[in-house]
Amino acid sequence: MPKLILVRHGQSQWNLENRFTGWWDVNLTEKGIEEAKAAGVLMKDKGVLPTRAFTSVQTRAIRTLHLALGECDRLWIPETKDWRLNERHYGGLTGLDKQETREKHGDEQVHIWRRSFDVPPPELEPGSTYDLSNDPRYFGIEVPRTESLKLTIERVLPYWLSDIHPALSAGETVIISAHGNSLRALVKHLSNISDEDITELEIPTGQPIIYDFDDAMQPSARYYLKDA
Amino acid sequence: MPKLILVRHGQSQWNLENRFTGWWDVNLTEKGIEEAKAAGVLMKDKGVLPTRAFTSVQTRAIRTLHLALGECDRLWIPETKDWRLNERHYGGLTGLDKQETREKHGDEQVHIWRRSFDVPPPELEPGSTYDLSNDPRYFGIEVPRTESLKLTIERVLPYWLSDIHPALSAGETVIISAHGNSLRALVKHLSNISDEDITELEIPTGQPIIYDFDDAMQPSARYYLKDA
Repeated sequence: MPKLILVRHGQSQWNLENRFTGWWDVNLTEKGIEEAKAAGVLMKDKGVLPTRAFTSVQTRAIRTLHLALGECDRLWIPETKDWRLNERHYGGLTGLDKQETREKHGDEQVHIWRRSFDVPPPELEPGSTYDLSNDPRYFGIEVPRTESLKLTIERVLPYWLSDIHPALSAGETVIISAHGNSLRALVKHLSNISDEDITELEIPTGQPIIYDFDDAMQPSARYYLKDA
Repeated sequence: MPKLILVRHGQSQWNLENRFTGWWDVNLTEKGIEEAKAAGVLMKDKGVLPTRAFTSVQTRAIRTLHLALGECDRLWIPETKDWRLNERHYGGLTGLDKQETREKHGDEQVHIWRRSFDVPPPELEPGSTYDLSNDPRYFGIEVPRTESLKLTIERVLPYWLSDIHPALSAGETVIISAHGNSLRALVKHLSNISDEDITELEIPTGQPIIYDFDDAMQPSARYYLKDA
């Protein structure tokens, strides 16, 4: 039966510095590199070996994928990168220190921006340091100015349906290397989680989550690969 | 005008050990990793930045690509892996020490196997250590038992015409990370080199070769990127 492997990228430089990252393209830390490799070693040890890979266009997810695939001798599988698997765009919060933002705007406001389902953070100012609308990787794409989790889901799900689900249905063992919120979008859909509950669901970095699918291509189980 | 970037993978473990490698999947050495990164730094410094990548299904070429793209911030470009860009299959010589092979078969015979255009080495014994016909990456593909350079060209060129040339024609800056003989196949075609001369043409590891193309999509210049 088809299996889906979800991996959230290992620790990034801005995870470490506790800054809002979103679409900004930061790299993995040494710890993040080790987390990614450990995910690959685990896939090898458990014999859950992907045959098809999807990832975002963000370096931290792509490198996590490559490091993990390197460890389980699967660098050769087809790999597709798509912006629709990117992290949620944090709008005007991008680059800010989370603690400083709390001091400035108050705990409650920051909690709303981080954890509400459909309230997006303030929009990113066009032309500001973190404006990516001229980044060549987004050529032809309207880069969002901000996104709620709801808006993130609205781009992740169509891509899941059009590109990823068909690969699973064709019998592939699919790995998706992505981000906290783009993976929340998938888990919400696959595990039928409410709008309220999904914002509190934490997806750990570098820890492969497996979905098994049944004959009707419905998810039949969700578990951490380490517990398999 | 479109540009093509050819990169031969950095030093592999068996380059270092002086063994015939072919389709066997060995990894890069530390030196090979440094060569691959240096290729990426050079692309960044010269401002020759690929928008589309092709590579073989062999780890040493894929890792060279990823390391180079990482250095020039282009990990996000679309990437296609295909066995038709693999190294020439060395048949029954696979795994053998080049010096020992000379001692056993004589300098002249080894020179013919290595440097003749159309004489393939002896076939690989089915079921031997280096038989890859059951490797999952070659599922559905008839793995050759041996290849001459001529036979290598006969699978590289159709792929160039069907998949790579159209990307260039569409205006992409294409990078191909591949192997000594699959790159010889392309250089022979693009620079119109004779059967005799191509076998003596050395393609250095980790050293990007650029082809410029003219309006009619004919190659107008070939040079090392370092000399650009």
